[in-house]
Amino acid sequence: MAAARRRWATRAEPPGALGRLEDLAVQLAGVTGLCPPPVPASPAVAVFAGDHGVVSDGASAWPSAVTAAMVETMSAGGAAVCVLAAGIGASVTVVDVGVASPLDHLENVRHERVRPGTASIVRGPAMTAAEAAAAVEVGIRIVGELVDSGADCLIGGDMGIGNTTAAAAIIGAACGRSAEAVTGAGAGLPARGPEHKRRLVAAAMQRAKGCADPLELLAQLGGLEIAALAGFYVAAAGRRTPFIVDGAIAAAALCVADLLSAEVASHAIAGHLSAEPAAGIALEHLGLRPLVDLDLRLGEGTGACLAFPLVKAAAAALEQMAELPTARPAP
Amino acid sequence: MAAARRRWATRAEPPGALGRLEDLAVQLAGVTGLCPPPVPASPAVAVFAGDHGVVSDGASAWPSAVTAAMVETMSAGGAAVCVLAAGIGASVTVVDVGVASPLDHLENVRHERVRPGTASIVRGPAMTAAEAAAAVEVGIRIVGELVDSGADCLIGGDMGIGNTTAAAAIIGAACGRSAEAVTGAGAGLPARGPEHKRRLVAAAMQRAKGCADPLELLAQLGGLEIAALAGFYVAAAGRRTPFIVDGAIAAAALCVADLLSAEVASHAIAGHLSAEPAAGIALEHLGLRPLVDLDLRLGEGTGACLAFPLVKAAAAALEQMAELPTARPAP
Repeated sequence: MAAARRRWATRAEPPGALGRLEDLAVQLAGVTGLCPPPVPASPAVAVFAGDHGVVSDGASAWPSAVTAAMVETMSAGGAAVCVLAAGIGASVTVVDVGVASPLDHLENVRHERVRPGTASIVRGPAMTAAEAAAAVEVGIRIVGELVDSGADCLIGGDMGIGNTTAAAAIIGAACGRSAEAVTGAGAGLPARGPEHKRRLVAAAMQRAKGCADPLELLAQLGGLEIAALAGFYVAAAGRRTPFIVDGAIAAAALCVADLLSAEVASHAIAGHLSAEPAAGIALEHLGLRPLVDLDLRLGEGTGACLAFPLVKAAAAALEQMAELPTARPAP
Repeated sequence: MAAARRRWATRAEPPGALGRLEDLAVQLAGVTGLCPPPVPASPAVAVFAGDHGVVSDGASAWPSAVTAAMVETMSAGGAAVCVLAAGIGASVTVVDVGVASPLDHLENVRHERVRPGTASIVRGPAMTAAEAAAAVEVGIRIVGELVDSGADCLIGGDMGIGNTTAAAAIIGAACGRSAEAVTGAGAGLPARGPEHKRRLVAAAMQRAKGCADPLELLAQLGGLEIAALAGFYVAAAGRRTPFIVDGAIAAAALCVADLLSAEVASHAIAGHLSAEPAAGIALEHLGLRPLVDLDLRLGEGTGACLAFPLVKAAAAALEQMAELPTARPAP
């Protein structure tokens, strides 16, 4: 990182004129251990899908069946993340880690289902600790496969009706914030209004109160896709591969990942600031500043895909810019 | 634009979940008159270079000779804008519209010099109205050539030691703001401190007080490259070709372009928010919200290049996303 700072100081620009792009390239040097850090050329997106029992309590205006329908749309290449991933030249791996409906007929989907959706987090644990660990393992395994296949920048995405409720509860618990602070509209207003969703988040957080162990946090508040994403981030940091974090669901997973393994968050690149309030709270808690802020609240990895060209540009600028053509002016 | 809004409403996402990306695609539909708007595939960058007499009054810590040196760096592909343009697959046309030093030896540079730098704007007009018009014409001509060659998204950049002083004065005059509000550090602190630069901007604004005609504004406060950029934007809007505005210099040019031809600003895409305060003032005055905010203050078109993938992603998402897989939930 020090070498990267020194290299910036000799490039053909006024010192610091590329602003946060310079910080980003320095971070990439730290993550990869190389200066200049390699320009990422093979990004890979993995979208983890799972269902949420809390939907039966009115957490979302959308029925759980939409999760499977969107996984099918992803497997056909029609989801937003597919379009944005294609735009950055990224592969997309769709992983069923816990969808409730059968998806065996879909050939483009990785079938890694730990269980068919979580149990309702307002009435009891989402899953067992063993199931949470199994979902984390899925995320770790996917990173291994992608990096072994040449991926040099990783993006994790999510699909799961009801998952902003689980993410809000996890972020509230991990960051010590109230249900009121972390609850947002998610994919649209919940069936019974925002007040109802806030009560669901509060009830889940109350149940998990005092829980500090990351696997237990996942077991209590769930999200099989959140658990898989947590494993994904831990493994990406372990492989020294840059990874870009998406919105609220991804931020919840990063909070857990950072509890699972110290300094995972310092390896993370925050892709964007989701319109979902929990996302900003989690990023601030982890000391991360998002690259773009476009009022997105879609998930799937879309915001992280949009940030990838900035990551690539930062590395390319540090690697390819000429040295200063003339001496610097005296200070 | 109405057709684009209707198309978004049927895409496979919760309504509005792609946030400002949706607004951007709607704007592209308005600019091009097509729905879905075509995904830009051939971006083109034109960097206009000119020198500023006010450097002799201590406007910059850098000598004017750096302008020519940086044009040479650009012609060799080593400047930041060259690297970032290559990253988005954009051509780069470097145009000498008013550099003070001879550049005839550079083959990769368009030689369109109207005059060798401006006169000092604190002591008198930067140039004649006829010279300003000639520089505007250069920008218009370049757009014609680029669009005729197939460019479908245009980015204007600038190179000119001292040009944040001229841009600040133009933005102060066009937006009715004080020298204090519009003056920033530019490419680094000015030779004699920030107070001195503010005094130069104030003196120039005082001299041009009451001037409302856009060509006269250019003649008084100058920037041959600013004049060329103003023509560039007017012509891009006229050709219904999307264009992305860069930082403070570009914003000053857009203020003038909007005076030259009504509604040019409504066609503009604000690429980024420069760290230079005048840029944000101008964008707000013109009703534009920048896409990214990364504390850049380099110019050259770099910030606009960084925003191009977002423009492309917005158009691609509207064009290529599938329709909703299931019926929407009842409101």
